Amino acid sequence: MRVCVVGAGLIGGSLGLALRAHSDIEHVIGLGRRAEPLQRGVAMGALDDWQLEPDVALAEVDVIVLGVPLGAIAPVLRWIAPHRPKNAIITDVGSAKGCVVEDAIAVWGELPPQFVPAHPIAGTEHSGIDAAVADLFVNRRVILTPTPETSELASDTVTRLWTMAGASVVRMSVDEHDRMLAMTSHLPHMLAFGLVDLLAGASDRDEMLRYAAGGFRDFTRIASSDPVMWRDICLGNRAALLEALSAYRSDLETLAEAVASADGEVLEAIFSRAKQTRDAYRHWFET
Amino acid sequence: MRVCVVGAGLIGGSLGLALRAHSDIEHVIGLGRRAEPLQRGVAMGALDDWQLEPDVALAEVDVIVLGVPLGAIAPVLRWIAPHRPKNAIITDVGSAKGCVVEDAIAVWGELPPQFVPAHPIAGTEHSGIDAAVADLFVNRRVILTPTPETSELASDTVTRLWTMAGASVVRMSVDEHDRMLAMTSHLPHMLAFGLVDLLAGASDRDEMLRYAAGGFRDFTRIASSDPVMWRDICLGNRAALLEALSAYRSDLETLAEAVASADGEVLEAIFSRAKQTRDAYRHWFET
Repeated sequence: MRVCVVGAGLIGGSLGLALRAHSDIEHVIGLGRRAEPLQRGVAMGALDDWQLEPDVALAEVDVIVLGVPLGAIAPVLRWIAPHRPKNAIITDVGSAKGCVVEDAIAVWGELPPQFVPAHPIAGTEHSGIDAAVADLFVNRRVILTPTPETSELASDTVTRLWTMAGASVVRMSVDEHDRMLAMTSHLPHMLAFGLVDLLAGASDRDEMLRYAAGGFRDFTRIASSDPVMWRDICLGNRAALLEALSAYRSDLETLAEAVASADGEVLEAIFSRAKQTRDAYRHWFET
Repeated sequence: MRVCVVGAGLIGGSLGLALRAHSDIEHVIGLGRRAEPLQRGVAMGALDDWQLEPDVALAEVDVIVLGVPLGAIAPVLRWIAPHRPKNAIITDVGSAKGCVVEDAIAVWGELPPQFVPAHPIAGTEHSGIDAAVADLFVNRRVILTPTPETSELASDTVTRLWTMAGASVVRMSVDEHDRMLAMTSHLPHMLAFGLVDLLAGASDRDEMLRYAAGGFRDFTRIASSDPVMWRDICLGNRAALLEALSAYRSDLETLAEAVASADGEVLEAIFSRAKQTRDAYRHWFET
């Protein structure tokens, strides 16, 4: 299998590192707009080769992985569209899927059977090729959201690719994916960014942050994530995120009312249900 | 120095373990309502001895540490008041300080010079004596909030005690403490409990939590904290917490409006300021 990774960042670089260790992978070529991260990718063993020209890079590939942020999906699709081999399978790694499908329709006019929207549930608050590691996807889940147009062969090939990288692959609908991720990932990022921003604006932020304990450190880790990437995720998954935000804000109103009226029963009930839920599901996400 | 720790939990047990390793500490006795955790404390080396009767336990102590949750401060003060040696210094470990001072005034009628409200900024989402470790306070900060009535000798003695446990001790006013902790600890706990509770009520929570990634795990770790303890903290620090909640809710409204109107500039500005702030202060709380 010959693979082209478009964009040499954390995800593309880590995928390259994982795939190049696999005997079924013949060649991993990097394609991008800037030479520097691609050269780094070759130097660190994530890529066999690199290219700035899509016609050369895509000439003989079987799978194209768009390892670019959501905001770059449309321009990159436009850039490579004329050079994509007819049968090459194309997949992405974006954290929201509805907007990727819309971008694809806007560029191609229709969804080709070779297109498999996908989302590896992996990553850290760091980004860029220098943060890439070969085992980033080991024991992680990758969600494929094939469209009605996607061929079974294309889905199977992308499944095989991610399985080689150590991930377990599941399928669900675009809507289901976007609603779920809004709740468990996009909303928490908004909440963490919001909290740190609130503190950033406080006149005594130095002192406040000096006395912040471990809970604060863990709670806000995701607020060190890339702002542009998260801007694009929030804009890309607007509808589901707004729904999640609205539900959360009404929950927060209940909590604030309970504090205001010193209603210990309501507070304890909410906190207990939360603790029980988190403790019960912990084994799923503490790996 | 002879110390009595009232309540054998995570904080009292960890303090006992740390103090007993120190040559300036003659004796650490545990006092409580139930024998079992006190017996565990002796077995694991956190206590020299234990007692269920305050008159016996307090007969010859120099320092009394109330290692009990905020909700137990008033009843415990009432319980030990008749037996406290006149010159014994008394301190607590509560996460809010205004309510502790109020409890003390309610029980004693006035604040004795031996009373030093204090708060070790340490702990985990676990609680109970079995989670106690000797190095819990090493390189952690302990905030003393002496009242105008507190004697310098009493503050110095409590400083010495926590320094022996490896902590660095600072002083600030009760109000300053409560406002600061509302923002950096109590509010984040509310937000994490609220998010997990929201998910707990979702019909497809199994699937949602199955695909939750590392960011969610870190963000919600504090939602595994003890619900009763946190109920009491929220009630104890009501005024400052309501103020923090109100500021946060208005920040969240700004974020929701930016998402609704697809205002990428506002989102990026907030996310960038948050990331810059967290990254700049990270060295303070990543220890």
